Amino acid sequence: MKSNPRSRAQRRRDTEHRLAHDIDIWVASASADGAPYLVPLSFDWDGEALLVSTPAGSPTGRNLAATRAVRLALGHTRDVSMIEGRVEVLEIDALPQERGDRFAARAGFDPRALATPYRWFHIFPRRIQAWREVDELPDRELMRDGRWLA
Amino acid sequence: MKSNPRSRAQRRRDTEHRLAHDIDIWVASASADGAPYLVPLSFDWDGEALLVSTPAGSPTGRNLAATRAVRLALGHTRDVSMIEGRVEVLEIDALPQERGDRFAARAGFDPRALATPYRWFHIFPRRIQAWREVDELPDRELMRDGRWLA
Repeated sequence: MKSNPRSRAQRRRDTEHRLAHDIDIWVASASADGAPYLVPLSFDWDGEALLVSTPAGSPTGRNLAATRAVRLALGHTRDVSMIEGRVEVLEIDALPQERGDRFAARAGFDPRALATPYRWFHIFPRRIQAWREVDELPDRELMRDGRWLA
Repeated sequence: MKSNPRSRAQRRRDTEHRLAHDIDIWVASASADGAPYLVPLSFDWDGEALLVSTPAGSPTGRNLAATRAVRLALGHTRDVSMIEGRVEVLEIDALPQERGDRFAARAGFDPRALATPYRWFHIFPRRIQAWREVDELPDRELMRDGRWLA
C-alpha cells in the first residue's frame, strides 16, 4: 500500500507527536575513536530537548559524555524520524525534582533511585529528518542547524 | 502483559528467525573520529553473514569502510536483537551474481543497477544480545567472539 509523500509540515506534526507520546528511542553514539554503539532508551520531551538517563559507566553514558554527539531514531524502519543532537550532561542530582518525576512517570523507572550511578543527558535536536519509503526521500530534512524548515 | 524470561536457546531461535525473515535492520556506525550515524537498511542473511548495500559515499558507507565496525538492531525497542559485527567491504561487481540476485529479491532494490556507486558490506556477527524488558537483561548475551553460547 502506497500513499502520497507527506508534506514537510505533516512530517513535522508526525515527528512532534512521537516526541510527545513515544516512550522509547534508539540512541546511537560513538566512542572518541570510532566504535559505534546503539541501544534503546526511554525518553521524555519538553518541547525543546529530549531527556534520557543511563549509567555513567555504560557505553552510551561514556560516549555521550566524551563526544556530546548523538543520532536518534524514532519509529520503525519504514517510518522513521531521525534526530541529530547536541548533548548536555547532568549529574543525577542536578535536575529539578519535578522534571525527574515527569521522566520517571513516562519512562517507568526512576534513575535517581538506583544503586548504579546514573546521569541525565539532555539532547537538543540540531537536525531532524523523516521518511517512510523511497518516495519520501525528497524533502526528508525537517530541521537544520536547530531550526525547523516547515 | 508479562511473560517469563526466555531461555538463551529460545532467544537464539527468535534471533535466527528474524535474520532469516526480516527485511530491514538498524545500522549504527561511526566515523574514525567519533561521529555516530544510524540508518535503517535492507539486508540479506546466508546463515553466516549479513549482507547490506549502501552508497560508497554515504555516511554509513564511509564509516564502515573506515572502521570495519558496526552495531545492528533487529526488532523494536521492547524486543531487540543487538548484533556487533566485523565488516568486509566488497566492490559492487565483486559479489557472485546469484548472491546479488538473492539480495535484490529480498530487499526490493538492486544496488548493481543504480547510477550512484554502491558497495556491498558483509557483516560477520561477533557478539549478539537479545532482550525484551528488564526481566530479560540477565542471559541477554547469545554470542561472544563469534560463537553462540546456546
